[in-house]
Amino acid sequence: MQDSTSSNTIDIASGDIVTCTIGNISLCGVYVTERNGMAVIKLDSGYNIGVSHQNCIVQEKHHGESAKVIHEVEQNPLLPCVSIISTGGTVASSVDYRTGAVTSKFEVQEILSLIPGLAKMAQFRSIQLSNILSENMAVSIWQEMAQAAYDEIQAGAQGVIITHGTDTMAYSAAALSFMLKTPVPIVFVGSQRSADRPSSDNIMNMLCATKTALEGPSEVTVVMHASTNDDRCAIHRGVRVRKMHTSCRDAFQSIDIPPLGYVSYPDLEISLRSENTDLEAKNDAKTELSLSLAMEERCGLVYYYPGASVDVLDAYQHYKGLIIAGTGLGHCSTEWVRRLGEMSSSGMVIVMVSQCLNGKVCNRVYDTGRDLLAVGVIEGGDMLPEVALVKLMWVLAHASGDEPRAMMQKDLVHEKNESSFVAWRGVP
Amino acid sequence: MQDSTSSNTIDIASGDIVTCTIGNISLCGVYVTERNGMAVIKLDSGYNIGVSHQNCIVQEKHHGESAKVIHEVEQNPLLPCVSIISTGGTVASSVDYRTGAVTSKFEVQEILSLIPGLAKMAQFRSIQLSNILSENMAVSIWQEMAQAAYDEIQAGAQGVIITHGTDTMAYSAAALSFMLKTPVPIVFVGSQRSADRPSSDNIMNMLCATKTALEGPSEVTVVMHASTNDDRCAIHRGVRVRKMHTSCRDAFQSIDIPPLGYVSYPDLEISLRSENTDLEAKNDAKTELSLSLAMEERCGLVYYYPGASVDVLDAYQHYKGLIIAGTGLGHCSTEWVRRLGEMSSSGMVIVMVSQCLNGKVCNRVYDTGRDLLAVGVIEGGDMLPEVALVKLMWVLAHASGDEPRAMMQKDLVHEKNESSFVAWRGVP
Repeated sequence: MQDSTSSNTIDIASGDIVTCTIGNISLCGVYVTERNGMAVIKLDSGYNIGVSHQNCIVQEKHHGESAKVIHEVEQNPLLPCVSIISTGGTVASSVDYRTGAVTSKFEVQEILSLIPGLAKMAQFRSIQLSNILSENMAVSIWQEMAQAAYDEIQAGAQGVIITHGTDTMAYSAAALSFMLKTPVPIVFVGSQRSADRPSSDNIMNMLCATKTALEGPSEVTVVMHASTNDDRCAIHRGVRVRKMHTSCRDAFQSIDIPPLGYVSYPDLEISLRSENTDLEAKNDAKTELSLSLAMEERCGLVYYYPGASVDVLDAYQHYKGLIIAGTGLGHCSTEWVRRLGEMSSSGMVIVMVSQCLNGKVCNRVYDTGRDLLAVGVIEGGDMLPEVALVKLMWVLAHASGDEPRAMMQKDLVHEKNESSFVAWRGVP
Repeated sequence: MQDSTSSNTIDIASGDIVTCTIGNISLCGVYVTERNGMAVIKLDSGYNIGVSHQNCIVQEKHHGESAKVIHEVEQNPLLPCVSIISTGGTVASSVDYRTGAVTSKFEVQEILSLIPGLAKMAQFRSIQLSNILSENMAVSIWQEMAQAAYDEIQAGAQGVIITHGTDTMAYSAAALSFMLKTPVPIVFVGSQRSADRPSSDNIMNMLCATKTALEGPSEVTVVMHASTNDDRCAIHRGVRVRKMHTSCRDAFQSIDIPPLGYVSYPDLEISLRSENTDLEAKNDAKTELSLSLAMEERCGLVYYYPGASVDVLDAYQHYKGLIIAGTGLGHCSTEWVRRLGEMSSSGMVIVMVSQCLNGKVCNRVYDTGRDLLAVGVIEGGDMLPEVALVKLMWVLAHASGDEPRAMMQKDLVHEKNESSFVAWRGVP
């Protein structure tokens, strides 16, 4: 990557605030780097433009990290204690003006100073876990995260917030849903924009997450923008949520069920769905805190597509479990059925879910579906493919013999609706 | 599977209409089979129940296929000609009372007699392709389908309807979108229920599809219920549609764009989105009919998940092309980045899309994304994973050298929005 300090033109450096003249137009922005002989300027709108260096005038020199002033935010010891567990991600990231890319960073005082109002709601303790981008998340990080949440709750936290990159947040939320039984809320929150960008959504998300950590349901949830208006966040169940847009603020959606509730903004009022009002009495319902971290990592998730070679299943032959995201009601080719049957008879637990994401699989309807059941493939009901994967990892580490098969068909933590004999909506 | 004729209790056979007594309740249904010593009865509601044989009384013997009466429907030679290409699927399926499962069947006279009103709209010719369930669809069937549509249009069809199982319909619609340039509408249609079930949606879908075949846009579309009300069907673009529910009538949704238009029901009025009103003048815009069937089958689609082993990529090492459905903006682990880089340098065309389904990938934002671009992985914009797979198969069979890479980044048939410098919605 190009280093802006090698810019051989004029005395201009990454982070400097500049004005550029293009014809009659004058634009203000931040100098990012030199590229192909042009100055790359990040405009206030967030867009990058390329301009000739002689048309740029430095208005204010950038003084680098060392000059950054963090105002120490005083904490009120009378307020309830909320722990923030940081795992990196956009909510704790900022732009690297050298490359123009976003990298992760985190200091709790930085978050408190960036988000006015937070310190008035609770007193915060912070734990920084691995500061990695969420695409590098793996089982060991989920375990580290669950352990940290457990430790914080044991130490008296009345709620836990986990800041997380949005790309894999739903996977982590699902993992912690199985690993932890919790008497207090555990709230995942992230941001689709980093905090130093104009439209950042992390202030509102953090405030709503804090409210949920204090007064929300005592389970693992994801709290993110509910619409592109900054008017409320949705409280999603950790095992029923999915990132459904690459970049917009309301990317997270509860799948096949409505969210558990909402937090309005800026007044931060929680409203729960009527069937969840029992959840409001969270402090009465004393779930005992417990932790079961073990995961069987030899589990896979494969999306079937028409014409897919059975050879792609070879990579999984020594796995203990496999989720197949089949088409429609839960189908794959007859060739796949045969191979899955072989894998199942050799002891692998294989569960069929649907790439439709919504609705239940039902393999009792069509011939190939019935063949799947006959060879031992389990119907995954309406479980999301990713959640089914995480559940299978957890189940295989906590049960043996025929138990895992039975557990995959049962609803453990609201990850699936217990299915009636006929498994889908409407008249069969 | 158990054969009901082996029922050792009383003179009762699959398909017989029976009444069963359970306590004070008397229920009417169809005898399906014997299972675990009980009679399985399919009730009018569609639900199966198990009842003791001695509580069942046969009301009407089933006389088998031969007793079925098909009324020959007369066709009007003055009406425009529409060709129905049948590939099986629920729209042409019925219940097998022996197993209780749905199997496919098709005869054009059967469809015409089942769907009143159809014969008044057009004169129909019919082609029956492979009568297979759609999970067994593969490239050769797409080619057979495209060839049949081409032949029918050459022979004078003013519109083509392809009846198709819903599970893989979107894959087939995408394939034909690339294979055919068409001066007339090519409309995929299916049903989420078979025609002999009470809530079957195939009558409305077929009428709306016929209207679209006669007056809709001259491209490959999917016409299915737009809501759970029987009030209109949506006209989806073949390369922007996905089955998003396993079983409900409005399972098909245009992703990240609105549908091209709607057909109201029962009045069958077509309304197109304003930006598509130029499509209404379909007979003026003379796209020349052409067919390019070749597909490179050594292409794969892999969904990445956190912790996924790079070994799963081994199965694809002799492939010509690979679609990765990464997390969020288009990410996978650094280990995957390395392996994809190796595969890319050995000549494989690798395209990153997002498992979010909505929104564009953008690998210029985060470090690992920039690494992906550096090793030669192509950004797939907002292409749906399945559509990207089908496109890659087509592109690799129609171009060589650097062309496939360029073509994967270009919009060929509205499968992606041409991306601006900053590739995602909102302020970056």
